[in-house]
Amino acid sequence: TNPVFTGIETTVFETMSRLAMAHDAVNLGQGFPDVDGPRDILEKASETLLSGPNQYPPMLGLPELRQAVAAANKAFYGLDDDWASEVLVTSGATEALNDCLMALVEPGDEVILIEPLYDCYLPLVKRAGGIPVRVRVTPPAWDLNADALAAAFNDNTKAILINNPMNPTAKVFTQDELQLIADLCKQHDVYAICDEVYEHLVFDGAVHRPLMTFDGMRERSVRIGSAGKTFSLTGWKVGYVTGPAHLIDPIAKAHQFVTFTTPPNLQKAVAYGLGKNADYYDGLAGELAGKRDRMARGLEALGFGVLPCAATYFLTCDISGLGLGTSDVDVCRKLVSEAGVAAVPVSAFYGADAPGGFIRFCFCKRDEVIDEALARLASYL
Amino acid sequence: TNPVFTGIETTVFETMSRLAMAHDAVNLGQGFPDVDGPRDILEKASETLLSGPNQYPPMLGLPELRQAVAAANKAFYGLDDDWASEVLVTSGATEALNDCLMALVEPGDEVILIEPLYDCYLPLVKRAGGIPVRVRVTPPAWDLNADALAAAFNDNTKAILINNPMNPTAKVFTQDELQLIADLCKQHDVYAICDEVYEHLVFDGAVHRPLMTFDGMRERSVRIGSAGKTFSLTGWKVGYVTGPAHLIDPIAKAHQFVTFTTPPNLQKAVAYGLGKNADYYDGLAGELAGKRDRMARGLEALGFGVLPCAATYFLTCDISGLGLGTSDVDVCRKLVSEAGVAAVPVSAFYGADAPGGFIRFCFCKRDEVIDEALARLASYL
Ligand SMILES: CSCCC(=O)C(=O)O
Ligand SMILES: CSCCC(=O)C(=O)O
Repeated sequence: TNPVFTGIETTVFETMSRLAMAHDAVNLGQGFPDVDGPRDILEKASETLLSGPNQYPPMLGLPELRQAVAAANKAFYGLDDDWASEVLVTSGATEALNDCLMALVEPGDEVILIEPLYDCYLPLVKRAGGIPVRVRVTPPAWDLNADALAAAFNDNTKAILINNPMNPTAKVFTQDELQLIADLCKQHDVYAICDEVYEHLVFDGAVHRPLMTFDGMRERSVRIGSAGKTFSLTGWKVGYVTGPAHLIDPIAKAHQFVTFTTPPNLQKAVAYGLGKNADYYDGLAGELAGKRDRMARGLEALGFGVLPCAATYFLTCDISGLGLGTSDVDVCRKLVSEAGVAAVPVSAFYGADAPGGFIRFCFCKRDEVIDEALARLASYL
Repeated sequence: TNPVFTGIETTVFETMSRLAMAHDAVNLGQGFPDVDGPRDILEKASETLLSGPNQYPPMLGLPELRQAVAAANKAFYGLDDDWASEVLVTSGATEALNDCLMALVEPGDEVILIEPLYDCYLPLVKRAGGIPVRVRVTPPAWDLNADALAAAFNDNTKAILINNPMNPTAKVFTQDELQLIADLCKQHDVYAICDEVYEHLVFDGAVHRPLMTFDGMRERSVRIGSAGKTFSLTGWKVGYVTGPAHLIDPIAKAHQFVTFTTPPNLQKAVAYGLGKNADYYDGLAGELAGKRDRMARGLEALGFGVLPCAATYFLTCDISGLGLGTSDVDVCRKLVSEAGVAAVPVSAFYGADAPGGFIRFCFCKRDEVIDEALARLASYL
């Protein structure tokens, strides 16, 4: 069996969800909302499933969804995409990442990853035959070190994979950081694979700007979006990739042999959902920011060192002030089994030599669930 | 970009569906029914979508679906699977194939494929780093040559990938052929990846026996099934892999980084569907056999040399008697654009040196659609 997948662990999100279930804990580990997204989108999916057809849709995705993705790219970022050659629908953003890496990376190519990193990045790069080169952003501000990044680029670099807004740091990359990445990509002729699934979950007036919109990046970048995150329907597994035709073409060739296509009723409902106006997106971000604040206030009062959070579903906390030790893995184990609250150790987002003292809480939960978790933590601590 | 996916063609099924649409042709190319599967399964999916939750289900699949798959394995084949460690749900059988190859094959391993082969097999084996070794079954009977097969096995052989019942040949492998494959797998310590998506579409009392049920094969085989094919819902993309825990484990590790999971409402509806009794399965096979006969009679009357068909959605025909030439690609091009009927050239199922004179028609269509196609072919020929 292949060493990339033999003896590796089950993803930390699944592991924590299993532990949460086993211990009847409040699950603030895996990132998913506990209230499903808009009722009208659910109804659209439910109706179009009944009316059918439930047969293979086009391999690239339904034209109406690809058009809706292109229209959203235009409305939000001023991008001008030709939906017919520059938009591909996938069975979730993870499949999109797999397809991009399988299509763009050749064995021996170096791929730059920014650490902490989402846990599929390393195995996917390795299984594609790529050599991961890790560069860190460091807490508490999670700034990108310009020299370290520049040093990671060389003649063997094929691509940089960047998650912006970033999980688990809840960071939105600054204009200066993005400009630096863009300059290095152009200088070294490198592709940018941009995992932007949290693009619409950005708070306090912070601005998410796709790397693709920087001068000279349009032709070398692909951008991945997620209906699961945008519409609070993580189980649907509908994602999309936007990029220049010369990159979407090989990515679609990978996609056609990985899932081939995505359920047509879900595609129709997501196309419908993307027609929502600014009120929807503002409302979603506003609601999440409120939950973030509710949880942050509670955690701070309990002695957690809550780090800044400008985006995503996640709050990262420094646990060194709690008196529970500095091993994030141990603390998460104690919290799930003894306090009845599941979180995720941030060390799971590192390839090696992780800093020890940080854990991540997911705040996209009903207020009473957040309060219950805080109450449990309070009585435990 | 990676050479496996650069400059390759769009899958022939998608290409023919696009041509069918462009020419307003009757689409007998891509294999999908034109009537959706059971209404009660659709209703189940539609209702559970509305009631939710529409969030990440467990990575391995919903327990109720994994239990239903194990129960079906028991009922149909006497297999005793532990659903908790031996059944994995995937986003379609293509994802299952991808996951199996990515998990079981290491770069440099040889993988035996039986030609004609489903068109994702070669690129998936190559992208996994494997070396495809092709062995042919030859028309009209599509018998497996024992010597050729034995000669394909050696110390570098890691796996054999077999499609049984087989697309496009509509062949069900004989007990003797399966015994030979089993003996060679055991002798050379080789895994069997068994693509059995057409397991329930078997006609005239032919018996499909999973290779996994042969002595000594249980521990070295994985078996792939498809709800799309079993319930005439090809757009749902729900598949399942059954195998020993020591193989399902790395395959699940591949799966968790490819799609992670599959929409929960579809999983619930498929679990419900797998509870159907023998009447359903007999009815499905009986209906398809009737359509096969209707189409075979019509094609024979027009001069097509219709080959035997014991299973699947497909009739393969010798076109040498039609006077249209022996290039299957040319004939398919003419038929779609001039006769208004889309078929698939069988040469698309070969890595190289394909025999020229065969095309494939899909017969899982309404009777009036079959009749319309035959009428168009009649007036063209
Ligand atoms: C695929 S499960 C992980 C969900 C998620 O994005 C996270 O928790 O970080
Ligand atoms: C994934 S589209 C191909 C459908 C099919 O199985 C076939 O036509 O052979």
